[in-house]
Amino acid sequence: MPDFAVGVDLGGTNMRIAAVDETGKQLEVISTSTEVKRGRESVVSAMCDAIRALSAKFTSSHRLVGTGIGVPGIIDMESGLVKESPNLPDWANYPVREEIQRRLGSSVILENDANAAALGEKWMGAGRDVENMCMITLGTGVGGGIVLNGHVWHGMTGMAGELGHMAVYPDGVQCGCSNRGCLEQYASATAVKRMAVEKIASGQAPELARAMSENPEFSAKVVFQYAIQGDKQALEIFRTIGSALGIILADMINVLNLQMYVIGGGVSSAWEVFSPALFKELRNRSFVYRATEPQDNLAVPQRRKTIVTRALLGSDAGLIGAARLPMM
Amino acid sequence: MPDFAVGVDLGGTNMRIAAVDETGKQLEVISTSTEVKRGRESVVSAMCDAIRALSAKFTSSHRLVGTGIGVPGIIDMESGLVKESPNLPDWANYPVREEIQRRLGSSVILENDANAAALGEKWMGAGRDVENMCMITLGTGVGGGIVLNGHVWHGMTGMAGELGHMAVYPDGVQCGCSNRGCLEQYASATAVKRMAVEKIASGQAPELARAMSENPEFSAKVVFQYAIQGDKQALEIFRTIGSALGIILADMINVLNLQMYVIGGGVSSAWEVFSPALFKELRNRSFVYRATEPQDNLAVPQRRKTIVTRALLGSDAGLIGAARLPMM
Repeated sequence: MPDFAVGVDLGGTNMRIAAVDETGKQLEVISTSTEVKRGRESVVSAMCDAIRALSAKFTSSHRLVGTGIGVPGIIDMESGLVKESPNLPDWANYPVREEIQRRLGSSVILENDANAAALGEKWMGAGRDVENMCMITLGTGVGGGIVLNGHVWHGMTGMAGELGHMAVYPDGVQCGCSNRGCLEQYASATAVKRMAVEKIASGQAPELARAMSENPEFSAKVVFQYAIQGDKQALEIFRTIGSALGIILADMINVLNLQMYVIGGGVSSAWEVFSPALFKELRNRSFVYRATEPQDNLAVPQRRKTIVTRALLGSDAGLIGAARLPMM
Repeated sequence: MPDFAVGVDLGGTNMRIAAVDETGKQLEVISTSTEVKRGRESVVSAMCDAIRALSAKFTSSHRLVGTGIGVPGIIDMESGLVKESPNLPDWANYPVREEIQRRLGSSVILENDANAAALGEKWMGAGRDVENMCMITLGTGVGGGIVLNGHVWHGMTGMAGELGHMAVYPDGVQCGCSNRGCLEQYASATAVKRMAVEKIASGQAPELARAMSENPEFSAKVVFQYAIQGDKQALEIFRTIGSALGIILADMINVLNLQMYVIGGGVSSAWEVFSPALFKELRNRSFVYRATEPQDNLAVPQRRKTIVTRALLGSDAGLIGAARLPMM
């Protein structure tokens, strides 16, 4: 009987629950809205119902190894507490692992959502052939996950991987984490919108100004559409993203010398408009990158190249990574 | 019969060779000048003579496990080549490991000098009770070493740990590595002197100007002496060092969440004048540090605190770490 696990990607707006078999195949996925306003009891209860339904459906043909849950927040790995979650405010210091284990009667593993995404890309995505990689997830915020020797590197208290809060510009934009100039302030969807609004306010970006006035849902996506149509101000915003990512990745390559760095999350769809600036920074700033840069002529074996690439699993990375947790 | 190993700390000016037993005790140390100008053959030959002399002396009472050599440069771990060494220019692409093994007839391990220092501090110094730590060595340049699960983290090609070339200020001072604003440009002995010369040139630092005109060997040490005597301009230089270190360490704490970060090398003697600015940056910039900051009241167990501290072994760290290599 093949193994399977249940993975949960718990977002601030939506929650997805999947049964995933040991080969990484998604047997079935349930999507539901996360009704944060109705309180955590309502969210936990909906999650447990979906996990039970999926488990029951596949236990005749598969052996259930457990449930993994990707949570958007800081998790204390030892106690299974959510220490802090901006999107799930009433979950702070809630013993979520214990509570869900009690309801399900089977083992549960919690993981930070960006770490789960990194593990998903390592298992079934861009990183499937490497053992050491780092993933940066560009969403509403910027998350990160580091995989060393095939496992998520948690650090001492499970807080490792916070690449979104590395300072790109130490005197730059104030971040909610109290640092200044964090990557999150230059490379998240929120940052794209802020930079566009700033340009509009300064009168530099008439096209974007019109887009904003015409479209009540003016967002990072709209700015991206203008960029691919060649709007100079929109392109400049994506160059800022690429530069910020390049500065941070140059640091990470110099410090960790990993085989692969993966960029995922919604903003990574804009790869074609931000990646040239990213690679320019890498070449200018990282002697480790230059020594290991992939070349058309393969003088150095491919396994000793530094690969910087897009994620492959899209929004499934976190879900697949969460399901992987109980299999490890 | 107890084990022992020979460690070599190969500097651009001096070379030290030690027999070290399995408890970390230095049985005997030989110091000699590194006559770089006479070419690598002369250096290798002097090194091998000293290693043989020490080995012979202790093989009646101890079992030799091998030789470890800390080299100031980039090492290809797989091939045992020195890829690049600013202080040993004619060593580039020289198969030093093979050559020394051939002459000695016993096994040799090469390691980057900053990695060897990190391993030394982990074994016998500040990090003896932790498994995961990072060391920054502030010397003529700035080196770094990362120890994970008790072992040096080498990365894909042995180039990991280059914390000295993380960008503190991405538009800052041009570095020899081609990056701008590297930590090395703000926290090395070379940087201390450069910052003092800049202040003198701008007419801001009359005391330092007098010191420089009176002392032909005006150096980082002289600037430190002025700082401890309360000279404002000298103190400002050390605050710059502390801030630069704090910005980089905040990043490293957010990203790796290690138990310990150790500051060593000659400039670390100025700990009392630069560390207040360092800790101020950590508290302001790293939410991971704030969540794990050591407090007088020990609500969180000590093992879950982030310790940022001075190195304990001084200039012996690299020598002891080099000797540790063949024991692992």
